[in-house]
Amino acid sequence: MSILVLGTVALDTIRAPFGIRKNIIGGSAAHFSMAARLFTKVSLVAVVGDDFPRRQINFLISKGLDLTSLQIKKGKTFHWVGEYKCDLNIALTLKTELGVLAQFKPQILKEQRKIGYVFLANVDPDIQRSLLGLMHAPKLVALDSMNYWINTKRKSLLRLLKEVDIYLANEQEALCLSQESNLIHAAKSLHRIGARMVLIKKGEDGVLFYNGESFFSLPAYPAERVIDSTGAGDTFAGGFMGYLARTGGRFNGQKIKEALAYGSVAASFNVEGFGLERTSRLVLRDINNRLAKFRKCVLF
Amino acid sequence: MSILVLGTVALDTIRAPFGIRKNIIGGSAAHFSMAARLFTKVSLVAVVGDDFPRRQINFLISKGLDLTSLQIKKGKTFHWVGEYKCDLNIALTLKTELGVLAQFKPQILKEQRKIGYVFLANVDPDIQRSLLGLMHAPKLVALDSMNYWINTKRKSLLRLLKEVDIYLANEQEALCLSQESNLIHAAKSLHRIGARMVLIKKGEDGVLFYNGESFFSLPAYPAERVIDSTGAGDTFAGGFMGYLARTGGRFNGQKIKEALAYGSVAASFNVEGFGLERTSRLVLRDINNRLAKFRKCVLF
Repeated sequence: MSILVLGTVALDTIRAPFGIRKNIIGGSAAHFSMAARLFTKVSLVAVVGDDFPRRQINFLISKGLDLTSLQIKKGKTFHWVGEYKCDLNIALTLKTELGVLAQFKPQILKEQRKIGYVFLANVDPDIQRSLLGLMHAPKLVALDSMNYWINTKRKSLLRLLKEVDIYLANEQEALCLSQESNLIHAAKSLHRIGARMVLIKKGEDGVLFYNGESFFSLPAYPAERVIDSTGAGDTFAGGFMGYLARTGGRFNGQKIKEALAYGSVAASFNVEGFGLERTSRLVLRDINNRLAKFRKCVLF
Repeated sequence: MSILVLGTVALDTIRAPFGIRKNIIGGSAAHFSMAARLFTKVSLVAVVGDDFPRRQINFLISKGLDLTSLQIKKGKTFHWVGEYKCDLNIALTLKTELGVLAQFKPQILKEQRKIGYVFLANVDPDIQRSLLGLMHAPKLVALDSMNYWINTKRKSLLRLLKEVDIYLANEQEALCLSQESNLIHAAKSLHRIGARMVLIKKGEDGVLFYNGESFFSLPAYPAERVIDSTGAGDTFAGGFMGYLARTGGRFNGQKIKEALAYGSVAASFNVEGFGLERTSRLVLRDINNRLAKFRKCVLF
């Protein structure tokens, strides 16, 4: 089955120990899609300004993405400027320019309403809710957010939690939204609040998953060459959802664990280059080859 | 085969959110032994003062430990006072009184020199070296240390690294001794310096293992009820070495991974009570039962 992703397509400027990139494609929906496309058809719902280069649109199309619901509006594309210092896991935000994102109202085609797998990547929770309202009985809905919305639209986000199957968060977000001081308690609390399943992304320390009954835990793939970790969480989500959508069927424990492993492997490629440099050159065979290595690295 | 452990037997005073304990048995060798004894015979090499309660000696003997090389010297037992606040993974040291540990010269029986598995738990690296010099061709030697020795006896510790099979460190120690900013690079660097294998303990984020060729990685067992994490790293080492000593044979990748899982499970029990409260009541069946749960939690 195919996937619909709502999120941002941005122009990112990134300073890191291994180099600088100006105005490269970034954003939650772009990173997610570049991994998810390896598994299934992906329809992208986002907005860019009329400054977004045509060749970048062509690049996204050449990667097989369905851009029929990518709006191009008069104004500036969402622009993020970030810096990484010694710790390549921690991005310092130097500048955020919302541009056309400030007025974003997602619209989709009638046939897109029936898409079974929906990923609500990080945007305003009210925008996420409005998109979700357009969908016809999706099979699986996953939700991501960020501290900014947890702090400014907490109520709206908590309400949305009850309407999704999986809530994805990084450590800080999970602790902040649940107001717990321990990830195990945070996962349980977010489940009680309403998310059927909770997926906590811990970067280089792996992931923790809770389905309301049991915990699953996976380390990260040991990445030796970290260049830029921007978008690693969304790339993880792309591999995770991509695998679930491709294989379909019931979400039993075994399938979820396999999907977590696919997500980890996808994220491990993302950090090896700036922006989409590495993930845009992947084919599914690369993912499967590394998954085999990952199995050796973690199975006992 | 049996295990010889050199380290500390201490009296610990611990303040934590769930309670306070005064002068309970602690120390690296005590925590290690309480896990390792579940797998094989353990000979403990340490020193206590004449203030160490006789009933505590009897308690250690009742757990099957060989105390023939536990010295009882005139003076005070090593005493550590620590506190845990919100983050139960981070101990704040309030007081350290070395007592008789300051003059410790380990001595062992002639028959103990032939013990095949040696764990050099955290004490002065010169003391660790002197004990190692007494051993006759041990099959496996593992070494632990701490930031204090990395800072004050760096050269001595680096020299010792070349003489051991496995160097165990927590994240901070691994980064500090290797002078790297990334755990993968730290493990490789410590291997180049001389440790045949490197085991980095990341607490609730699991472990990373490097054998000079490949990395193995395991998450921690998801511990829901953390009371006191003092000694968790040594308990991990006890389960890890205990399993290796019990099963013997060659240290191939599969066996190492199983041993890492046993270590993780042992540590997960340790944090459920103060000091040795929980681990001293364990039998091997408890470990095996939880290992089965752990497998479900991490295998995909």
